[in-house]
Amino acid sequence: MEVAANPAAVKDKLSMVVFSGDLDKLIAAFTIATGAAASGMEVTMFFTFWGINVLKKEKGRKGAPSFLGKMFDMMMPKNMNKVPLSKMNMGGLGPFFMKKMMKKKRVMSLPEYMQLAKDLGVKILACSMSMDVMDIPKEDLDYVDDFAGVAAFLAEAAESKITLFI
Amino acid sequence: MEVAANPAAVKDKLSMVVFSGDLDKLIAAFTIATGAAASGMEVTMFFTFWGINVLKKEKGRKGAPSFLGKMFDMMMPKNMNKVPLSKMNMGGLGPFFMKKMMKKKRVMSLPEYMQLAKDLGVKILACSMSMDVMDIPKEDLDYVDDFAGVAAFLAEAAESKITLFI
Amino acid sequence: MEVAANPAAVKDKLSMVVFSGDLDKLIAAFTIATGAAASGMEVTMFFTFWGINVLKKEKGRKGAPSFLGKMFDMMMPKNMNKVPLSKMNMGGLGPFFMKKMMKKKRVMSLPEYMQLAKDLGVKILACSMSMDVMDIPKEDLDYVDDFAGVAAFLAEAAESKITLFI
Repeated sequence: MEVAANPAAVKDKLSMVVFSGDLDKLIAAFTIATGAAASGMEVTMFFTFWGINVLKKEKGRKGAPSFLGKMFDMMMPKNMNKVPLSKMNMGGLGPFFMKKMMKKKRVMSLPEYMQLAKDLGVKILACSMSMDVMDIPKEDLDYVDDFAGVAAFLAEAAESKITLFI
Repeated sequence: MEVAANPAAVKDKLSMVVFSGDLDKLIAAFTIATGAAASGMEVTMFFTFWGINVLKKEKGRKGAPSFLGKMFDMMMPKNMNKVPLSKMNMGGLGPFFMKKMMKKKRVMSLPEYMQLAKDLGVKILACSMSMDVMDIPKEDLDYVDDFAGVAAFLAEAAESKITLFI
Repeated sequence: MEVAANPAAVKDKLSMVVFSGDLDKLIAAFTIATGAAASGMEVTMFFTFWGINVLKKEKGRKGAPSFLGKMFDMMMPKNMNKVPLSKMNMGGLGPFFMKKMMKKKRVMSLPEYMQLAKDLGVKILACSMSMDVMDIPKEDLDYVDDFAGVAAFLAEAAESKITLFI
């Protein structure tokens, strides 16, 4: 299929895979996503692998039913307030300074960015395969508009002007 | 050149750079690539830098002819069965659990994904500059459809709806 | 807005976010950027977060005015000659071997790539939010065509055939 056959196929839209669960990359992802949404673009974020951690509820999670799932859960950040930096993490000191600096400079925190994304109508997809592999129950996630497979994401990406893997 | 002048330039195609040699990112790359190919898209994967390791033969490699090349080879994963996780690698324990979980949940392994990619007609390009820098002989790689430079990849990407760097 | 309404919106152009400050990813970014520019594409590189380090002057920097900024600066690579590898850094031994191998194979160094990018007319944008958060004064950066926010980058990306996050 060529665009010529269907010129309406491409929209003013941005689609990104959020694979990373690192504070710095997540801030980059949300800055791009909310910036695009604020300027009128349609935006879809597909959270997968480590990125899923950012969607976890702060309280009242059921947790993984299986032993392997519990092991995974134990090793991963509990929620978006606990995510590390990809560089210079230094046992949490890096994220501490980064957050301090962001606050001082009035840059939004991750929870604020997520709220803004929701307010601006950014579509939040959670990767169903990742949830299955890591044994994360649907009820343990927040903010999600839809649980989706890669095919659903690709359909969104194929009609987007901007596609990113973060 | 603008698309208006050549509306047939953009195809229903996905092109990705596979720079990473980490198990988790490679699984994401193959899930996206095979998902796209299964839904009828044309798909090109351009393996470069650490990503090249996934193309290495399991047995009978000649190895790098130079001393520096041998050093590189020694420090890198031997083939796709030996690649680490980008996070929580824990000396190989992370990949062990990840693979166990994937098997339990009937998610494909890396070798199975590669086979599926080949079966679905995904085009596998190996970056000739990376091979030259790391002194990897052509005969040591498997699965490759073509050895290519960045210009060849860019020509594929420019006619793609979805472009990703993984 | 759909492309159909404005078919001239998409140009033969590549836009990338350079988030990483790692030697290997930066070489990949510059290889792609200069390769695209050499083949006649318009190219924009948006340097943000760790990527900003590559733009730092070698000599005569003023440095961050604030205490937190000074802390950040101290922890980060001084300039493009000091950036680490994302893998196998081994306290600087990895980059040492990588550079040796690149020289032997006549692959360009980072400073040579930057010069080539400038010569080929690649547009270099520095992320103003990152500079603000890390307290980096404008005068401490080199090579920059424009200081820009994410909205400016998105406008460039939306008219590009190829978009990447590196």
